[in-house]
Amino acid sequence: MAKKKLVYFFGGNTAEGSGSMKTILGGKGAGLAEMVKIGLPVPAGFTITVDACEDYYRFGKKFPAGMEAEVKQHLARLEKAAGKKLGDAKDPLLVSVRSGAARSMPGMMETILNLGLNDATVEGLAAKTGNPRFAYDAYRRFIQMYSTTAMGLSKEPMEHMLAEMKKKLGVKTDPEIPAEGLKELCREFKAFYSKNKNGQAFPQDPMEQLWGSIKAVFGSWMADKAVTYRRVEKISDLKGTAVNIVQMVFGNLGDSSGTGVCFTRDPNSGQNVFYGDYLINAQGEDVVAGIRTPLKLSEMERQMPAAYRQLCEVRKTLEKHYQEMQDLEFTVQEQKLYMLQCRTGKRSPAATFRIAVDMVKEGLITKEQAISRIAPEDIERLFYPVIDPKLDRKTLSDKKIASGINAVPGAAAGEVVFTAAEAEALAAKGKKVILVRKETSPEDVGGMHAAQGILTATGGKTSHAAVVARGWGKCCVVGCEALDINYGTKLMVIGSKTIKQGDFITLDGSAGDVFIGELPLKKPELPESYNVLMGWCDQIRRLRVRTNADTPYDSENAVRMGAEGIGLCRTEHMFFDTEARRLAIQEMIVADDAANRKKALAKLLPFQRDDFAGIFRAMNGKPVTIRLIDPPLHEFTPKDDAGVAKLAQITGLSAEHIRHRCEQLHEANPMLGHRGCRLCITYPEILEMQVTAIIEAAIQCVKEGVKVLPEIMIPLTIDRKELAILELATRKVADVLIARAGVKLSYMVGTMIEIPRAALLADQIAEVAEFFSFGTNDLTQMTLGLSRDDAGRFLPFYVDEKKAGIFRDDPFQSLDQSGVGMLVKMGIEKGRSTRKDLKVGICGEHGGEAKSVKFCHRVGMNYVSCSPYRVPIARLAAAQAVIEDKTAGKASKAKSAKKAAKPKVKAKAKAKPKKPARKAKKGKK
Amino acid sequence: MAKKKLVYFFGGNTAEGSGSMKTILGGKGAGLAEMVKIGLPVPAGFTITVDACEDYYRFGKKFPAGMEAEVKQHLARLEKAAGKKLGDAKDPLLVSVRSGAARSMPGMMETILNLGLNDATVEGLAAKTGNPRFAYDAYRRFIQMYSTTAMGLSKEPMEHMLAEMKKKLGVKTDPEIPAEGLKELCREFKAFYSKNKNGQAFPQDPMEQLWGSIKAVFGSWMADKAVTYRRVEKISDLKGTAVNIVQMVFGNLGDSSGTGVCFTRDPNSGQNVFYGDYLINAQGEDVVAGIRTPLKLSEMERQMPAAYRQLCEVRKTLEKHYQEMQDLEFTVQEQKLYMLQCRTGKRSPAATFRIAVDMVKEGLITKEQAISRIAPEDIERLFYPVIDPKLDRKTLSDKKIASGINAVPGAAAGEVVFTAAEAEALAAKGKKVILVRKETSPEDVGGMHAAQGILTATGGKTSHAAVVARGWGKCCVVGCEALDINYGTKLMVIGSKTIKQGDFITLDGSAGDVFIGELPLKKPELPESYNVLMGWCDQIRRLRVRTNADTPYDSENAVRMGAEGIGLCRTEHMFFDTEARRLAIQEMIVADDAANRKKALAKLLPFQRDDFAGIFRAMNGKPVTIRLIDPPLHEFTPKDDAGVAKLAQITGLSAEHIRHRCEQLHEANPMLGHRGCRLCITYPEILEMQVTAIIEAAIQCVKEGVKVLPEIMIPLTIDRKELAILELATRKVADVLIARAGVKLSYMVGTMIEIPRAALLADQIAEVAEFFSFGTNDLTQMTLGLSRDDAGRFLPFYVDEKKAGIFRDDPFQSLDQSGVGMLVKMGIEKGRSTRKDLKVGICGEHGGEAKSVKFCHRVGMNYVSCSPYRVPIARLAAAQAVIEDKTAGKASKAKSAKKAAKPKVKAKAKAKPKKPARKAKKGKK
Repeated sequence: MAKKKLVYFFGGNTAEGSGSMKTILGGKGAGLAEMVKIGLPVPAGFTITVDACEDYYRFGKKFPAGMEAEVKQHLARLEKAAGKKLGDAKDPLLVSVRSGAARSMPGMMETILNLGLNDATVEGLAAKTGNPRFAYDAYRRFIQMYSTTAMGLSKEPMEHMLAEMKKKLGVKTDPEIPAEGLKELCREFKAFYSKNKNGQAFPQDPMEQLWGSIKAVFGSWMADKAVTYRRVEKISDLKGTAVNIVQMVFGNLGDSSGTGVCFTRDPNSGQNVFYGDYLINAQGEDVVAGIRTPLKLSEMERQMPAAYRQLCEVRKTLEKHYQEMQDLEFTVQEQKLYMLQCRTGKRSPAATFRIAVDMVKEGLITKEQAISRIAPEDIERLFYPVIDPKLDRKTLSDKKIASGINAVPGAAAGEVVFTAAEAEALAAKGKKVILVRKETSPEDVGGMHAAQGILTATGGKTSHAAVVARGWGKCCVVGCEALDINYGTKLMVIGSKTIKQGDFITLDGSAGDVFIGELPLKKPELPESYNVLMGWCDQIRRLRVRTNADTPYDSENAVRMGAEGIGLCRTEHMFFDTEARRLAIQEMIVADDAANRKKALAKLLPFQRDDFAGIFRAMNGKPVTIRLIDPPLHEFTPKDDAGVAKLAQITGLSAEHIRHRCEQLHEANPMLGHRGCRLCITYPEILEMQVTAIIEAAIQCVKEGVKVLPEIMIPLTIDRKELAILELATRKVADVLIARAGVKLSYMVGTMIEIPRAALLADQIAEVAEFFSFGTNDLTQMTLGLSRDDAGRFLPFYVDEKKAGIFRDDPFQSLDQSGVGMLVKMGIEKGRSTRKDLKVGICGEHGGEAKSVKFCHRVGMNYVSCSPYRVPIARLAAAQAVIEDKTAGKASKAKSAKKAAKPKVKAKAKAKPKKPARKAKKGKK
Repeated sequence: MAKKKLVYFFGGNTAEGSGSMKTILGGKGAGLAEMVKIGLPVPAGFTITVDACEDYYRFGKKFPAGMEAEVKQHLARLEKAAGKKLGDAKDPLLVSVRSGAARSMPGMMETILNLGLNDATVEGLAAKTGNPRFAYDAYRRFIQMYSTTAMGLSKEPMEHMLAEMKKKLGVKTDPEIPAEGLKELCREFKAFYSKNKNGQAFPQDPMEQLWGSIKAVFGSWMADKAVTYRRVEKISDLKGTAVNIVQMVFGNLGDSSGTGVCFTRDPNSGQNVFYGDYLINAQGEDVVAGIRTPLKLSEMERQMPAAYRQLCEVRKTLEKHYQEMQDLEFTVQEQKLYMLQCRTGKRSPAATFRIAVDMVKEGLITKEQAISRIAPEDIERLFYPVIDPKLDRKTLSDKKIASGINAVPGAAAGEVVFTAAEAEALAAKGKKVILVRKETSPEDVGGMHAAQGILTATGGKTSHAAVVARGWGKCCVVGCEALDINYGTKLMVIGSKTIKQGDFITLDGSAGDVFIGELPLKKPELPESYNVLMGWCDQIRRLRVRTNADTPYDSENAVRMGAEGIGLCRTEHMFFDTEARRLAIQEMIVADDAANRKKALAKLLPFQRDDFAGIFRAMNGKPVTIRLIDPPLHEFTPKDDAGVAKLAQITGLSAEHIRHRCEQLHEANPMLGHRGCRLCITYPEILEMQVTAIIEAAIQCVKEGVKVLPEIMIPLTIDRKELAILELATRKVADVLIARAGVKLSYMVGTMIEIPRAALLADQIAEVAEFFSFGTNDLTQMTLGLSRDDAGRFLPFYVDEKKAGIFRDDPFQSLDQSGVGMLVKMGIEKGRSTRKDLKVGICGEHGGEAKSVKFCHRVGMNYVSCSPYRVPIARLAAAQAVIEDKTAGKASKAKSAKKAAKPKVKAKAKAKPKKPARKAKKGKK
């Protein structure tokens, strides 16, 4: 095996590395190398690779073989390029030693500046620059940094000595300390060092300083804060940090020097203006430290016109080169500009869209590139209100009282209420409320809708609360286990804090945090570029995007978000809207026979018909998939004595009888119980009522001139015959109604595929179903044997890299492509084997998650359906999937063109060119 | 289309039909035809086919076209064969008209005898036989039968007239009525007929009588009682009944005539003796009616030696011909023997084995044929006690108070108790008890074991109660929904009956019936032939048969039943055995951290180690698969205040804290919750304790000289990495212990495949698992999305042919081969694709169900595992599977030999013969 190169040089006009080598050189090292390559002014230096760091840990914190020799060799090269030598008492080379992983981990790792100074070289520097104050300031900074960062001494004592010095000298700021004072400080610092290092003197040998600093940077990779950061940010693909050793340039050599950080465009608005801060006569850390107030970059044009012009050129060059907005660091040393860093700049969601769209207009990038650059989070953050970002961190952390699972992003503030009824009542009075529940049930839907946000003590991202709230884009935090709620006393206790009904709290649904009090919120505005870019997405995507919506209101909202139809209309949510509806469904449930059930269902019919008509009107011309009743009946039973009493009054049954009937409905595992189409198999009258409501509503709309495309969907199918029975029952009802009305109305009948058996036997089922809609929520639960309501206790172990780390993603958030995905793929292929034109979609929560949407594209679905607020994410992901297809196609073509593979029967591309040859042979015979 | 033949003749030495045409001619018609063919004495006649009956109903109760002509034509043929004519006033032909479907439906359908008699022919018959009494008796019987059966008059009035006649004449029995009395009765009957038929006279035209009788037989096919019978017996493959019109022969023509029914061997013991009853001077119906006591067949040798010898010849001929024990009907008319019916004889389970084994010894059949003839029910009925079959029907139906689901066959009687503790206490005092519960939980296991039988109000055939009871072969009735149990008052109410603790009840687990009082039971004895036949099964089967057993007692029992190892030892059942164990597991559950959990687990370790050692000793030399803890922890929590108090005392925790912790364990869908290996992922110390107990027990046994083959099985796996983590943890513990002990001990680590994802990704999982055991109980629940605890509400609709009839079998009883089976097949194939020698078994309830066992054989499993009492069924089914394989192989060979199919790439058999030809070609080149 060839020896790995562990050190890469850059300087002058050449660099051994390049911008594409981030995984080897880290982000900073790659950026520096690339800037050198394209001719930008960069101080010379070299980068020790990420591999070296990885090996350092692999070999028990020892430098890998050969690294030291390579460093020395490259140091010599650097000395030659700089025209200075490390440790030269006359004119010493000074270097910075900086960390730099492949991805930015801001503030997590260490930097040491001014390395090369010692008692001798500091004097040389003072002489050479004619600025002893500068030299001793650099030296005292180096001693501080090296002692704490490389040698582990604590920071406070030296900060204290610095403060004491200022007190002694009667000055207020560091720059006021004269050279002598700094010199004295250097002595004190060295004495402190020696005292705390068993009498060892502060290292004077620059090489010793260098090795110590490299070790310090390597060491910072595994420091607690960095490890925690990577865990929190779910960064698992990094192997270590590179180390960049770069010749020091100084922005603090007087008024012709300075230092700054800038973005090539405004990272907040995205506007194409040069944006940044700088300080005259300062080192980089001063900009960050915030002791002096930095100036706007526009000032620089006046103060240092030459350097500024040069910087503007750099800006242009870099944007053209990277075709991306860049985040830059620079230093001007006595009029001369040096670039110290460049990387892709972070930006606000609005800026993300504006920059992408602008760059297309400017001809810098293609539409495909623009689309590829948008992340799903960019869209989410564009829509949801946030806690005002100007609020200071301290206030935030003081007010934070608990954390839960971040179910629906956005922020919300309001008074705490503990029941849905109170939420509705207070909201009706114009109050903002947060509904706090142990868990929510379908009966709470009214109150949930009335509330600003929802907080529950239990449940995960696909619990009832989360799913319903997501449908409305309503801020929701679930599984907040610290909550101890007492409905009786209308109190909740969190640790030592007690919060009573009416107290204000604020939720951050993006982070999953709960704050006491009413924090200021900010609602972002939708930039015009958003519409432009989404329009491009719509042009290129192949997947249709529908929405899950149960009301005309949701439907209209979803159309505004770009929905092209309804993929899932849950009819049972309609049963909770008013007391009359609730009572009717309850009456149906307690009925003893089909006749009484029919009587109760007849009361529900007009409600459902009106709902459907409203939805059809809202979706005029767009398909509407309506799912027949799905949840087990016990979800609808009265939950308290008053409810039982009311039902007893209406039905004339005894309260005891009603309670008994409700108890009978209890199930050990309701997820696997009497629900979905099983209800229609045992109670066909439910199907009859629902189909009647759908078709009558459709007929009414057709008469009004609305274009209606109803798709009746039967849930929880497991067998062809089961579906055939219900399909026949559906058509029997529908066809009679249509014939009687004498209108032209066509409808489809299809099924959910949400139980493994349905996917396995999809070829048989497709003989009866005109369409499939994969219900991947339930399919995930059953394929993995995982109840989403209960998984909170152990799924975190499965997803957490630090624990078992079995799954990369929570399978309820991002489709388990290898397991559930195999069933989906099989289901589609089998289904289309018996019905070529089978329409296939997905209506689980995954339909709005980018990775899952791309999967749906790849397996050939016709559409995805998701909650209205996720429609734009799906549109984006669907477009990105097409682009990724093309890229993959090109890549594999390129690959197969290169590869001189043996001819295989299956290799189409290979087999084809042979045909003529064979024919020729035949001809010869 | 060629016209269907609707009528088949038999008589003399020829028959148009044959014994193999049961579906066309019905059982009786086929039997008659076959007997004619092999030269036995049968009166001539003809059979109207089942198809004709089917068409009759298809065409709205009209005879199919051509049938009448065919009947007339065959009647003429019969008249010729008989030498008599229907309606001939001098010497009339008389016929019987009998039903006969393809399968016997005893007593369900109609028969009319003596057809052809009218006011004229009766005189001819009287003159011809010189026996007017005989003639008028025949005539009055015919009028009765025709009037009631064909014409729908009620039976009572004519029976009453008969009784009045006897009163008037001062005689007691029918035979005492003289000719004149019978003649008078005929007149009265005809008058009664006319009066009830709007003045129509009783039909005198024999053809009219014939058509009426045929219609009557066709009509009886759809009579309520026949329809109900078919539904109850799950007969769904019959299309109708045939009609047999046969010349009458008379056993009541004096002392040289007689009639009888017999079996070619003793149907109770199976002994090879001629067995039956007969009556001198009687018609067939007299034997059945039971007015006269029939004689043993052995008497006949003395009374009618010639006919008897002839009958013995017939017996021999038929057994040789059919190679089966036959059930015969015969009539002797004036010394001449006529065979009226022959069919395969019903027999007791013991006789089934004896006859099969004897026939092999006699060279009549092969061992394979003998094995194929045994049904799984034959074995079950051989082992379980039954309610004494001598008990009269009336008593039974009077005592029956409820019906439930027949979970475990057999019968049991005892005092009712409502708690497991009371069951244990009373059983300890030597009392027989029946444990009655709403449902059972693992805590009830002690009481269940102590009870004679178990009765629950809820649950299905795979509920906890059913599964546990089946393991012990203990009578169990579940899902008896009529029960209204009040644990507080120790009462249960069934309809209007109240049963209190201490009252006796009797259960029939085979039928699912519950009786009040203590009914007499009978325990069948195991015949020697059982062991012989099971030995043959063991010789030819390829599948190994293991057992599911959790205790040394069960293990020993299973070995006696023929188990070759343990396929599933459920370790958690051991946690309930004593209070000390229960408390230790509860202490583990309420522990707040790993240290306290370990402390509690340490208390369980010695118990588990002793249990495992006991099992290893019992299974010396046989493999033992031990499954790590499977159920969710809440199954172990204390269920009452006393339990909580006790646990509080031991742990020093507050009762409130314990209750809170137990509440926290509540799950919405425990089946899909925190259980199985998920417990060991979150609490690795559980796995450590269990593996320690297994391996320490194994080491101890090895030192004692016991041969130990432990297989450690990890349940509920869904991912390769998940299994890899636990496999590593297992080996880490085990290998250290083995190395420390310095013994030679090898063990295997494998997994359950019981979640769809595990089957889908079996190739990956097999990289880590040394064996797979398909847990088809859970796999069925998840693949079908069907909770076995809740399915009682709707699954009956799915299985019941009269309702939706979606499934042929309950998927929890017989493996759903098309759905779950597809996953099993896929799992095996994928698993063996990465690990060729993967050992594969099944340990769900299906492992003891014959059809499922055969499926396991076909998909190439290594073994099945089932409860001890089902081991013999599995052994039988495994042998039958091999035989069926051979038969199918022969059939397909024969088929492919016949078929001149086009050559296909995949058709091996076709491709092979071509090889030499190709070689020849090559040679020529």
